[in-house]
Amino acid sequence: MNNLLKGKKGIIFGALNDKSIAWKVALKCHEQGAEFVLTNAPIAMRMGEINNLAAICNNAQIIPCDVSKNEDMENLITKSMEILGGKIDFILHSVGMSLNIRKGRSYTDLDYKFSHETYDISSMSLHRLLQTCYKMDAINDWGSVVALTYIAAQRVFPDYNEMADAKALLESIARSFGYHYGKRNKVRINTISQSPTATTAGSGVKGFGDFFDYAGALSPLGNASSEACADYCALMFSDLSRMVTMQNLFHDGGFSNTGFSYDVFKLMENKNS
Amino acid sequence: MNNLLKGKKGIIFGALNDKSIAWKVALKCHEQGAEFVLTNAPIAMRMGEINNLAAICNNAQIIPCDVSKNEDMENLITKSMEILGGKIDFILHSVGMSLNIRKGRSYTDLDYKFSHETYDISSMSLHRLLQTCYKMDAINDWGSVVALTYIAAQRVFPDYNEMADAKALLESIARSFGYHYGKRNKVRINTISQSPTATTAGSGVKGFGDFFDYAGALSPLGNASSEACADYCALMFSDLSRMVTMQNLFHDGGFSNTGFSYDVFKLMENKNS
Amino acid sequence: MNNLLKGKKGIIFGALNDKSIAWKVALKCHEQGAEFVLTNAPIAMRMGEINNLAAICNNAQIIPCDVSKNEDMENLITKSMEILGGKIDFILHSVGMSLNIRKGRSYTDLDYKFSHETYDISSMSLHRLLQTCYKMDAINDWGSVVALTYIAAQRVFPDYNEMADAKALLESIARSFGYHYGKRNKVRINTISQSPTATTAGSGVKGFGDFFDYAGALSPLGNASSEACADYCALMFSDLSRMVTMQNLFHDGGFSNTGFSYDVFKLMENKNS
Amino acid sequence: MNNLLKGKKGIIFGALNDKSIAWKVALKCHEQGAEFVLTNAPIAMRMGEINNLAAICNNAQIIPCDVSKNEDMENLITKSMEILGGKIDFILHSVGMSLNIRKGRSYTDLDYKFSHETYDISSMSLHRLLQTCYKMDAINDWGSVVALTYIAAQRVFPDYNEMADAKALLESIARSFGYHYGKRNKVRINTISQSPTATTAGSGVKGFGDFFDYAGALSPLGNASSEACADYCALMFSDLSRMVTMQNLFHDGGFSNTGFSYDVFKLMENKNS
Repeated sequence: MNNLLKGKKGIIFGALNDKSIAWKVALKCHEQGAEFVLTNAPIAMRMGEINNLAAICNNAQIIPCDVSKNEDMENLITKSMEILGGKIDFILHSVGMSLNIRKGRSYTDLDYKFSHETYDISSMSLHRLLQTCYKMDAINDWGSVVALTYIAAQRVFPDYNEMADAKALLESIARSFGYHYGKRNKVRINTISQSPTATTAGSGVKGFGDFFDYAGALSPLGNASSEACADYCALMFSDLSRMVTMQNLFHDGGFSNTGFSYDVFKLMENKNS
Repeated sequence: MNNLLKGKKGIIFGALNDKSIAWKVALKCHEQGAEFVLTNAPIAMRMGEINNLAAICNNAQIIPCDVSKNEDMENLITKSMEILGGKIDFILHSVGMSLNIRKGRSYTDLDYKFSHETYDISSMSLHRLLQTCYKMDAINDWGSVVALTYIAAQRVFPDYNEMADAKALLESIARSFGYHYGKRNKVRINTISQSPTATTAGSGVKGFGDFFDYAGALSPLGNASSEACADYCALMFSDLSRMVTMQNLFHDGGFSNTGFSYDVFKLMENKNS
Repeated sequence: MNNLLKGKKGIIFGALNDKSIAWKVALKCHEQGAEFVLTNAPIAMRMGEINNLAAICNNAQIIPCDVSKNEDMENLITKSMEILGGKIDFILHSVGMSLNIRKGRSYTDLDYKFSHETYDISSMSLHRLLQTCYKMDAINDWGSVVALTYIAAQRVFPDYNEMADAKALLESIARSFGYHYGKRNKVRINTISQSPTATTAGSGVKGFGDFFDYAGALSPLGNASSEACADYCALMFSDLSRMVTMQNLFHDGGFSNTGFSYDVFKLMENKNS
Repeated sequence: MNNLLKGKKGIIFGALNDKSIAWKVALKCHEQGAEFVLTNAPIAMRMGEINNLAAICNNAQIIPCDVSKNEDMENLITKSMEILGGKIDFILHSVGMSLNIRKGRSYTDLDYKFSHETYDISSMSLHRLLQTCYKMDAINDWGSVVALTYIAAQRVFPDYNEMADAKALLESIARSFGYHYGKRNKVRINTISQSPTATTAGSGVKGFGDFFDYAGALSPLGNASSEACADYCALMFSDLSRMVTMQNLFHDGGFSNTGFSYDVFKLMENKNS
């Protein structure tokens, strides 16, 4: 509508179904004039819903990619440039998976083989993506990369388990690589720290519903929706935010800077009555 | 161009001349479809350049306002709503002045009467503005207020003197009022922490030139220009950032998260040769 | 007991009665071998309890001081050096008062004359103290100054009102002056951000009891007591922490880095049942 | 001297030679009345210097431990409790190693197998240590664990390479586990973020000398020495800091909160003349 991304070429990771933030980001980027490639893990694609999204988005191409494999990443970048006809302008990294959570292991009973896999998929995948692009010189100057994260990287939310550490690692990688890619190509790399969101992944976390309500009650504007997050991602991909880099940007209705609200008490009263 | 602010009504503080960040913000908001009122201190207006800006911006009205006076603030808000024909959607607070710096007093030799005036003009003016709007219910739901600040609120830059403390106070006021105004009207309030900028005010600080070069060398993307800052303000005024509130947003080419860069060494070598 | 402060000379602000943190700090510093002067506002002294504290602490001298008056501050420093027989090694700043809270004014209805007084007493008093010492060269090299603060300087706790902004200002002053005094005399200046504490001042805040329970439930170790705070102050006054400066140190049982705890839900259930 | 750790039992990781911070921590803990076990990687022990340290420290026992192996960790904890005759009161984690740096690979050319090893040794080792203790219930209530870290976890120092990310992960683990261990046993877990230090590991980083001077010039108190760090560790192990947990504590002479200092310019002039 605003043509914020007119002529821009992108890659969007992580659209599983219409509850995914990445799904909304794709819709918004399409609306704002961008062309892009969609990607997800081969396993996630079997669900097939991503084809519906591609159809809406001007028949976007879909390229499967196991983010823990260098060759898959190289294939993704190479093919994306072929399909889009040039270098990339923006990338959304919306990838995360915790093996320990899946296997029902608590934070004080982690299996470290699982942890390595969690870090590999959820955090190092951003480095792998950026390093692949860097070596192939695949991102245009002033390009913009956004990775989605969560405030558990700064404060403890017990059920978030090892994903908290994975997100802290992810945010550090964004900063570190942001320095190097910024120096060489003015590419900027930021993380957006989003409110708890009822995606397929999010809803799976134990006690999600209660926590979602708690976070909403604490946030002066309430929890941010995935649509609002998509809007913010579009802003960060646009040229109008070109001097913002290496930042962790809270998109959370004010949650991060609110210590207490009476609405939390009210919520409890309602729950208990 | 992108119609990001189409139909939006605003107030812009602090456009002194074409080096002012506020000046660029006005141009950008005009370009993005907004209507607004310009304001500055009566003294600052005698220079007269603001008339040129108003002329470019569809003959925007100019209302003088001494930000340390409640009645001036009330007059500004009342008249702005009359002129713009309704409630306000966005406000830029770009106001700051240090009496102690002007009088050549160092941070270890402050005159506290001056300090009170510095805080009043540079920090409490934001509270006065917001409180006046809050009482008059002058801001539309989901309206956006941005105040400009500097990283001296977090780290010491010796020559920034008492303005560091004034900016810390300003940022706290933005957070505090952001909670209350967010709860009642979903109004969001953020600060943008901008690179050192060669405005008339900025250039006046002792050793500005050297420091400007140092900051530029440390920042992976270099120092952010006032034009880039104006673009970012426009994003923060738009509906696309509607869930961001109570944040301090660094717009600084990566300076805030860079600890060291060899370009600082190179800069020194050049200076000394 | 550990002789951590043997031979050290100090000034302790803010011991009103045996609920005061400063009272506990005095007891602990006495126990650790320090000599010191006690001070408080002339008004606060009329209560007379401070004499009991002085008696316990080896008949410490008491010097009244209105922290908003330069001449009172100069008198305090001069007399303290006379009494203690030399320069000062450590100072506790435990001073705060909000006129607007006392007068029942909410954060969206502040009287700015009151605010100026609040800042003057609660924040600028630290600058006045440090500037007076700096000019008189009254603090020994490697001396240590601690000011007590609260996390409302970082996050909004609605009932904390304008004291949040006053504490943000205080913390900034500690950083700023810490730079200058560190450079010249290796004097270090830190703030300790303490759990909510049932002092006479603290208990007066609206809804204190509920909030105290909430903070305790959220903190993995529970709320920190004033005795524990006194212990931590003694550490920060000792030579063993000599390279720590310009920091804001959370002494809060983990509250600051905890985002959520099920104990908050349990607390609510108990309250509502 | 102050008997701060009288009767306390500990485990100290990472004393390689008398330049190691852990070496100084051992000396200080011994001086303060603690008993402890020393440990390091089997490889590191071949150098043999740790025996000298053990001899000075009341013939402390030495137990080799490969921190990447669960069984080594279990053996260490079991034997330590046997030797010390009961549960543990304090632990120093001073462990870090980057395979990519050793192999000369830059941050934009990482080998991810190496990265996994780096994380395993430098970060996950803290989790492994804590999880082992947690399962064996090996730490006394109110015990204290400190891990050494570096500010590269927050800001980019280009030569610090992937260790920056490893330290961010380490700090997150300290926070996360601090919550759980605090809830169950009041055990507190903190990280100390130390100035650049000329240890055997530190000195090996490219350009260390120049950077060390730069950091010293920027810090109002200069760089913190390893002796000062040992003093601070002792404070954090003592009961006097018992309510501090889940914090990252800067021990850096003020570096972290200083944005600029003219001494940096002076340093450069001297270097270039």
